Amino acid sequence: MKTILAYGDSLTYGANPQPGGPRHAYEDRWPTALERGLGGQARVIAEGLGGRTTVSDDWYAAADRNGGRILPTLLESHSPLDLVIIMLGTNDLKPAICGSALEASFGMRRLVQIIRGHYAGKGEQAPEIILVAPPLVCDSDNADMMGHFGGYEHGLNESRQFAEHYAKRAGEWNTGFFDAATVAKASPLDGIHLDAANTRAIGEGLVPLVKQILGL
Amino acid sequence: MKTILAYGDSLTYGANPQPGGPRHAYEDRWPTALERGLGGQARVIAEGLGGRTTVSDDWYAAADRNGGRILPTLLESHSPLDLVIIMLGTNDLKPAICGSALEASFGMRRLVQIIRGHYAGKGEQAPEIILVAPPLVCDSDNADMMGHFGGYEHGLNESRQFAEHYAKRAGEWNTGFFDAATVAKASPLDGIHLDAANTRAIGEGLVPLVKQILGL
Amino acid sequence: MKTILAYGDSLTYGANPQPGGPRHAYEDRWPTALERGLGGQARVIAEGLGGRTTVSDDWYAAADRNGGRILPTLLESHSPLDLVIIMLGTNDLKPAICGSALEASFGMRRLVQIIRGHYAGKGEQAPEIILVAPPLVCDSDNADMMGHFGGYEHGLNESRQFAEHYAKRAGEWNTGFFDAATVAKASPLDGIHLDAANTRAIGEGLVPLVKQILGL
Amino acid sequence: MKTILAYGDSLTYGANPQPGGPRHAYEDRWPTALERGLGGQARVIAEGLGGRTTVSDDWYAAADRNGGRILPTLLESHSPLDLVIIMLGTNDLKPAICGSALEASFGMRRLVQIIRGHYAGKGEQAPEIILVAPPLVCDSDNADMMGHFGGYEHGLNESRQFAEHYAKRAGEWNTGFFDAATVAKASPLDGIHLDAANTRAIGEGLVPLVKQILGL
Amino acid sequence: MKTILAYGDSLTYGANPQPGGPRHAYEDRWPTALERGLGGQARVIAEGLGGRTTVSDDWYAAADRNGGRILPTLLESHSPLDLVIIMLGTNDLKPAICGSALEASFGMRRLVQIIRGHYAGKGEQAPEIILVAPPLVCDSDNADMMGHFGGYEHGLNESRQFAEHYAKRAGEWNTGFFDAATVAKASPLDGIHLDAANTRAIGEGLVPLVKQILGL
Amino acid sequence: MKTILAYGDSLTYGANPQPGGPRHAYEDRWPTALERGLGGQARVIAEGLGGRTTVSDDWYAAADRNGGRILPTLLESHSPLDLVIIMLGTNDLKPAICGSALEASFGMRRLVQIIRGHYAGKGEQAPEIILVAPPLVCDSDNADMMGHFGGYEHGLNESRQFAEHYAKRAGEWNTGFFDAATVAKASPLDGIHLDAANTRAIGEGLVPLVKQILGL
Repeated sequence: MKTILAYGDSLTYGANPQPGGPRHAYEDRWPTALERGLGGQARVIAEGLGGRTTVSDDWYAAADRNGGRILPTLLESHSPLDLVIIMLGTNDLKPAICGSALEASFGMRRLVQIIRGHYAGKGEQAPEIILVAPPLVCDSDNADMMGHFGGYEHGLNESRQFAEHYAKRAGEWNTGFFDAATVAKASPLDGIHLDAANTRAIGEGLVPLVKQILGL
Repeated sequence: MKTILAYGDSLTYGANPQPGGPRHAYEDRWPTALERGLGGQARVIAEGLGGRTTVSDDWYAAADRNGGRILPTLLESHSPLDLVIIMLGTNDLKPAICGSALEASFGMRRLVQIIRGHYAGKGEQAPEIILVAPPLVCDSDNADMMGHFGGYEHGLNESRQFAEHYAKRAGEWNTGFFDAATVAKASPLDGIHLDAANTRAIGEGLVPLVKQILGL
Repeated sequence: MKTILAYGDSLTYGANPQPGGPRHAYEDRWPTALERGLGGQARVIAEGLGGRTTVSDDWYAAADRNGGRILPTLLESHSPLDLVIIMLGTNDLKPAICGSALEASFGMRRLVQIIRGHYAGKGEQAPEIILVAPPLVCDSDNADMMGHFGGYEHGLNESRQFAEHYAKRAGEWNTGFFDAATVAKASPLDGIHLDAANTRAIGEGLVPLVKQILGL
Repeated sequence: MKTILAYGDSLTYGANPQPGGPRHAYEDRWPTALERGLGGQARVIAEGLGGRTTVSDDWYAAADRNGGRILPTLLESHSPLDLVIIMLGTNDLKPAICGSALEASFGMRRLVQIIRGHYAGKGEQAPEIILVAPPLVCDSDNADMMGHFGGYEHGLNESRQFAEHYAKRAGEWNTGFFDAATVAKASPLDGIHLDAANTRAIGEGLVPLVKQILGL
Repeated sequence: MKTILAYGDSLTYGANPQPGGPRHAYEDRWPTALERGLGGQARVIAEGLGGRTTVSDDWYAAADRNGGRILPTLLESHSPLDLVIIMLGTNDLKPAICGSALEASFGMRRLVQIIRGHYAGKGEQAPEIILVAPPLVCDSDNADMMGHFGGYEHGLNESRQFAEHYAKRAGEWNTGFFDAATVAKASPLDGIHLDAANTRAIGEGLVPLVKQILGL
Repeated sequence: MKTILAYGDSLTYGANPQPGGPRHAYEDRWPTALERGLGGQARVIAEGLGGRTTVSDDWYAAADRNGGRILPTLLESHSPLDLVIIMLGTNDLKPAICGSALEASFGMRRLVQIIRGHYAGKGEQAPEIILVAPPLVCDSDNADMMGHFGGYEHGLNESRQFAEHYAKRAGEWNTGFFDAATVAKASPLDGIHLDAANTRAIGEGLVPLVKQILGL
């Protein structure tokens, strides 16, 4: 039995694109869909926090949204791990936080370093890693949400660069790579979050790569 | 006797728009003016820190300018409180810090959450809250100050959005709202700070709303 | 379907009392045993970190062991929650960290405040809470482990006070209370950790109280 | 008109020795009594936080209790200041926090350094400083409170050393010194806090020294 | 024998403009060149950290890049000091971090305050200070590096303002000032870093000013 | 040419056991003595901070004394490194900070993990490491200094355990080990610090082990 950590933001949490709507059902969240797709050969632990960034601070919520500060705690709590899947970066696109897909890719690099350093420091073997480029921002009438991302054009232009930058980092650091934009589209309800079907699609889309990496 | 906390930045501190000029006299600061206007029915405690933001970090000074990090300490030190008046957001407009009135309004939301969570956590009743939209940035020959705000146009355009965003947050979170731009204008000496008369005007302008909220 | 967060330290993680031994099997950890005992009516999310304290800092590991700093993140990531079960305090007994069961009980109080304040700040309903007094420290030849706890006598004397202090806090703060020492004994292999059977026993022991609190 | 900052813990806040009792009336707190005694020649700003230490961390409350971390913010918010009176150290005596009156005196030294460095860094003149040795811990039936202080004997033995150590530090660092134990006694209700009369007595006791230092 | 602290970023570290290339030889780093130029009359301690900013946080690396947070530690470790030379600001130009040469100059001001406050707090004499405006960003095919700086034009435009703003701050705060752009040019290999000759040139260029300030 | 980082506290800094006395001359500090003993085959970079602990917080000074928090910055600033020599632990013995040589040895373990994780995270080779057990505390008339260490007996008893615990950690983690108590004795002037001859002796004593580890 393999153990996989799904580390992400509201898209991993399963946030509803309908403002105020309930969290997607357990069955519809992508870590659950991935676990289902792996047919009992792995447990997928979901750690998705709304607003989480790669490694930028964001104090607009009670939770610590800096993905680098909290990661070692979660690695410890869920080890031994065979694989860590990281889908982060959307929140990095907010101009007040970071504003750049390029920098998000370097935040992903830092998370890779944290994971590898964490285990190496203790003389243990690090898990495999997959970097996931998030879906594209789409247009929406939700003015506040679009405003967080510097407007639709900024959000779209930057999110379009995720795949290229993340793939480059994955190549340099020898991790797996998956482009979620190839299987999932944001809902126009808020321009960022995914409906249930698109959420499930990410988990399903990841199955082949995860099987390959874990030799399942 | 009611107790009111006035939580703010240099405009609450009473900074002089004349660079290097002395702090406005105690009598001229808006918390004092408000206390005077309440005719002995309330004590107003002033906590204004130059450069304070809503919830963004700013390490350009020795003091911790993140308004969210310090707030619980001040709530504890001055409780029991009947009302907290928050006038923040101007410093959020600096592009190096945040750059956006929209995000400032969400910083105000976070401060509301901190206040309500603080008391609820201990099983105590939270004070009433008023969100105050700060005065508009105006043009000035003070190049450094204008530079901090990304230039006059950026500062003005963003500060013009305070009222709309703050009123929306106040509505969503059921707090009082006051637009200081309706009673006070920044001094052209530095484009941000207020002369003594405009500082007093905020306290005087707040009197009716405070009386209504506190039932005075 | 109810959702329960099991928040704890190495005893919740499932650490092996045999130094260097593997983590207890998923089936043997107490959150799993509790989930099993609830017969499909609840999902139990396990967040156990080796060395976690209630609210004291401990920088001897890469992870942030202060249970209060990380809790808001986990609440956000796993909400909506119906119940939070907290079993912490053993690590507080280390003299270098805190040294006192009494203070551990006040650390538990702080965690209750954090949980209730977290949800109240956002206008949401807080989950139910159960405070669990940890098992007693027992004697062991593991000199380093005994040393961390100030020697066997100190560890035992303090851990014997958990139940009284935690029950008092639970009464004052209107939470559930369970004394794990009534169902589980530490292994003499290291004096602190539990073998698989004693680990399972905690989950099984909690079933009646959890059912009652959640109305199952 | 002089401005004085009264920086302290629950004794400066005006906590009631009767657990759950209300904060002492504004008129009975020692900063108010001092202001009254100065006959209109000074304003005394009270910043007292329950549980505040000199420079030790304590995460048992929502507020930041480390007296060194918050001090620069308060200095900025209330400057220009003529005098800072610091009465801290009682909470340092808790074994879980620090446990030692000697170290508390070195915490006071650090606060002196923070104050002087704060102003010197900006090329401004630092205010005068008075270090106040807190009243002695006394015996009480309040077991939790005595427990926080390591028992009555530990609390008393350490608090008896405040005056000697603080006076030594004051001499070395050229600050004023006042021993509050000469004018105020803790209430046996909890062994730590002061009734209204003893609280007022500190303010009244400080009047001559403050007048002398400020040339009033 | 004088002691000088050279406090900087990758340009002080001696980073190679050839990505992946080795650190410049000890002899080629500018602190070494300066020491050589001072002819045995001073020891120059180099503390250069890649990515260091003046006072902004940057969590993209394992090291703490905020130049203000680490400075007191280095001052303590290397005191007594006769002179601190600070060459920082280039990394402040990254839009994700700060984006502005003007703000970098105010970050330099904060470092001056930290240095002077550090020593004054302990009643010691502060060392002399020289603020160094970094070399200009130049164009490069290194897309990632140019991307970090918001593109070549943004990097160049802002870095061109270093000298004016730093000179103004130096005048206001009575420190020495040196413009490294007058003696060193960035390499087109990455647009930011210096080849060995240009690195040495900074140390050599500083010699006359350092001699004058230290009376050598 | 090899590069060695000497990471320590006041004993590495070269503090004078005569209170208020000057720092030991550059030539007398142990890193210098070690460099001299290596006959031009290595550069030894000294980073000694008064009061530095292994991994405990201590806010009694302006500098960050937690040896784990600052270490990554120094590793980055001085890499590539061939060897890191760590002599820490004395300050851990202060009861207000940690109080235990056993825990100090686990703090040393954490520093080993930080070093190895730091380089492994970036795919680089970590330097060799030597753990140095500090000299013994001796008796002194300096009451404040003895008080910091919980009295002479506590200081001596704990410091006598350094060698055993550090050697055990070194064995478990495959690092070099050296017992400075075999070559250096604290001065009775303050019971903690070393005179110049004893300071030099540590560097001289380390020469054979360093040569062996570095193959010189």
